[in-house]
Amino acid sequence: MPSIAVLPGDGIGKEVINEGLKILNFMGEKYNLNLKFEEFEVGAERYLKSGELIPDSLLKQLETFDAIYLGAVGDPRVPSGILEHGILLKLRFHFDQYVNLRPIKLLNDRFSPLKKKGVNEINFTVIRENTEGLYAGIGGILKKDTQDEVAIQEMISTRKGVERIIRYAFEYAKNLKGKLTLCDKSNVLTYSHGLWLRVFEELKKEYPEVQTDHYYVDAITMKMVRNPEIFDVIVTCNMFGDIITDLGAELQGGMGLAASGNINPNSVSMFEPVHGSAPDIAGKGIANPIAAILAAAMMLEYFGRKDLAEKIEDGITISIQENLLSQDMGGNLSTSEVGDEIVKILKRG
Amino acid sequence: MPSIAVLPGDGIGKEVINEGLKILNFMGEKYNLNLKFEEFEVGAERYLKSGELIPDSLLKQLETFDAIYLGAVGDPRVPSGILEHGILLKLRFHFDQYVNLRPIKLLNDRFSPLKKKGVNEINFTVIRENTEGLYAGIGGILKKDTQDEVAIQEMISTRKGVERIIRYAFEYAKNLKGKLTLCDKSNVLTYSHGLWLRVFEELKKEYPEVQTDHYYVDAITMKMVRNPEIFDVIVTCNMFGDIITDLGAELQGGMGLAASGNINPNSVSMFEPVHGSAPDIAGKGIANPIAAILAAAMMLEYFGRKDLAEKIEDGITISIQENLLSQDMGGNLSTSEVGDEIVKILKRG
Ligand SMILES: CC(C)[C@H](C(=O)O)[C@@H](O)C(=O)O
Ligand SMILES: CC(C)[C@H](C(=O)O)[C@@H](O)C(=O)O
Repeated sequence: MPSIAVLPGDGIGKEVINEGLKILNFMGEKYNLNLKFEEFEVGAERYLKSGELIPDSLLKQLETFDAIYLGAVGDPRVPSGILEHGILLKLRFHFDQYVNLRPIKLLNDRFSPLKKKGVNEINFTVIRENTEGLYAGIGGILKKDTQDEVAIQEMISTRKGVERIIRYAFEYAKNLKGKLTLCDKSNVLTYSHGLWLRVFEELKKEYPEVQTDHYYVDAITMKMVRNPEIFDVIVTCNMFGDIITDLGAELQGGMGLAASGNINPNSVSMFEPVHGSAPDIAGKGIANPIAAILAAAMMLEYFGRKDLAEKIEDGITISIQENLLSQDMGGNLSTSEVGDEIVKILKRG
Repeated sequence: MPSIAVLPGDGIGKEVINEGLKILNFMGEKYNLNLKFEEFEVGAERYLKSGELIPDSLLKQLETFDAIYLGAVGDPRVPSGILEHGILLKLRFHFDQYVNLRPIKLLNDRFSPLKKKGVNEINFTVIRENTEGLYAGIGGILKKDTQDEVAIQEMISTRKGVERIIRYAFEYAKNLKGKLTLCDKSNVLTYSHGLWLRVFEELKKEYPEVQTDHYYVDAITMKMVRNPEIFDVIVTCNMFGDIITDLGAELQGGMGLAASGNINPNSVSMFEPVHGSAPDIAGKGIANPIAAILAAAMMLEYFGRKDLAEKIEDGITISIQENLLSQDMGGNLSTSEVGDEIVKILKRG
């Protein structure tokens, strides 16, 4: 009976998480999953009221759950960076969620932005390192606000951090019987990505059954547009993972469809849509809940119910075929109607 | 009478530079440009023979030229990184070529990989910082080859370095009467890109006539695919510029069409196709010379002959319309036939 801490967060976060919960509740009843939910307030409201981002007491509470289901954080009333650092990155780092798992899967040809690539070509997974690199938050500024100012931001990679994510990626590719691609810039970032490349070459020997290749990050973006079909699994550092998964989200039809898992198999993992809080459309009931629903499906897969995750994805695929969609996807349904329609499809199936 | 140092380099570098020179020689005669060329050997051959990359004596010689016209470096017999660092990055840094100018311009709708975007939508310029950031080459490794290894790569930004590139970009956007977009990740890279954002905000006040906006690098890659028409000029750091210009090259029809200038208005500037030495097709006479020819056109523009640069670009546009192209672009001409045909078109025009 997995227990799930629900953190809807800001803006459309609340709206889309509601729909994810609708699907989870339906699946929970139908398949006797005995899911337990508890909701916590984090985000702009709490911060503006009390100055709190995630207090230690809340972190302690979250430690007792099996997973976290997060909406989105971000609000125009709070300077950019504060909520992202204090909540999203805080959770990723506190629970040492070193795997950021981001499937790039196009569900319907009509949502591909590419002339020549459809569902058969756009289907791979990016495994992003999630706890170090440029996201370490380490660095400083010398002579701030003078003409001599120097700002330093450290890209820090540790052997342990690099090895565990590359190993995870090899295991993932092995289970998938797929190819593993290393995405780095080791020809320029000779220290940090030199380490990545060395560890990749080393682990290759432990996984002779996994086919591999290697591209620099600049070339990866080209290949993702020109030949996305060559990829099965891509492993990359935190910063490059951030960039190429947004590009990937666009290839799968836009942010409204991109889900992500922040995973530490030995701690509390967190599932979230990749999109932000979208203040411009928040409160209107028109946000697209599919990414949040796919994130809920990833969470069920994480709990060992890949079968149910697939059922949800199939349900979404049908809802797309039948154009039971929000406005951003060319439909005319409200956020909650999209959720209702997916439940109806799941009932039928 | 501008003097040009020609560095064909490795692989297809030699082949495509030949065609660029063919066009430059033709234009030089027709418009009395009095161009002077001198060729120098750099690249794998020289390195393998003598261990030399760019000796100081050659740097001294290059200092006496008005510009450098570079093909490409890279060879499977030399470990990755050596030629790139020792030649390409060496030249960019030695001559403090702080502007990497990379136009993203689609010349014909049929080369757009995007369903909904054509020549009217894909037309902007990326201005990439070219002398600092993660490319500083600074960092180190602690406890190498042990389980405790830590690798640090420094992203270093200086006030001077950031200000001059952002100022260049404001001037560029102003001349174009276009919008300037800042691409950074200041919400995470608070030190280094905090500086970028502060300088951008400051310079905005000096250029009230220039419209501006700001996206994080992850969002930029999405926008480039979904709404490339919103961009006129994008300014960004060295690493992100590397990544988004490769994506941009793909949007304009592939590496075969992407040219770039490494500019320091007070020193020796360098013009090059963005593509590499392509060892797999080198020596076959089938490489696409268009990027190298566009780089030659950029060089003429740099010498003050924007009119002639436009004539060359128009000539290329016609050669594309008439399918007088190499195999990678769906034609059946050899490298030198492509050059010959463009000369013929320029003769007609
Ligand atoms: C909001 C931001 C800090 C975050 C990141 O950069 O990781 C987001 O872009 C993401 O990809 O989840
Ligand atoms: C070859 C490599 C060092 C170079 C870079 O990263 O700048 C190239 O990718 C480019 O964009 O010119």
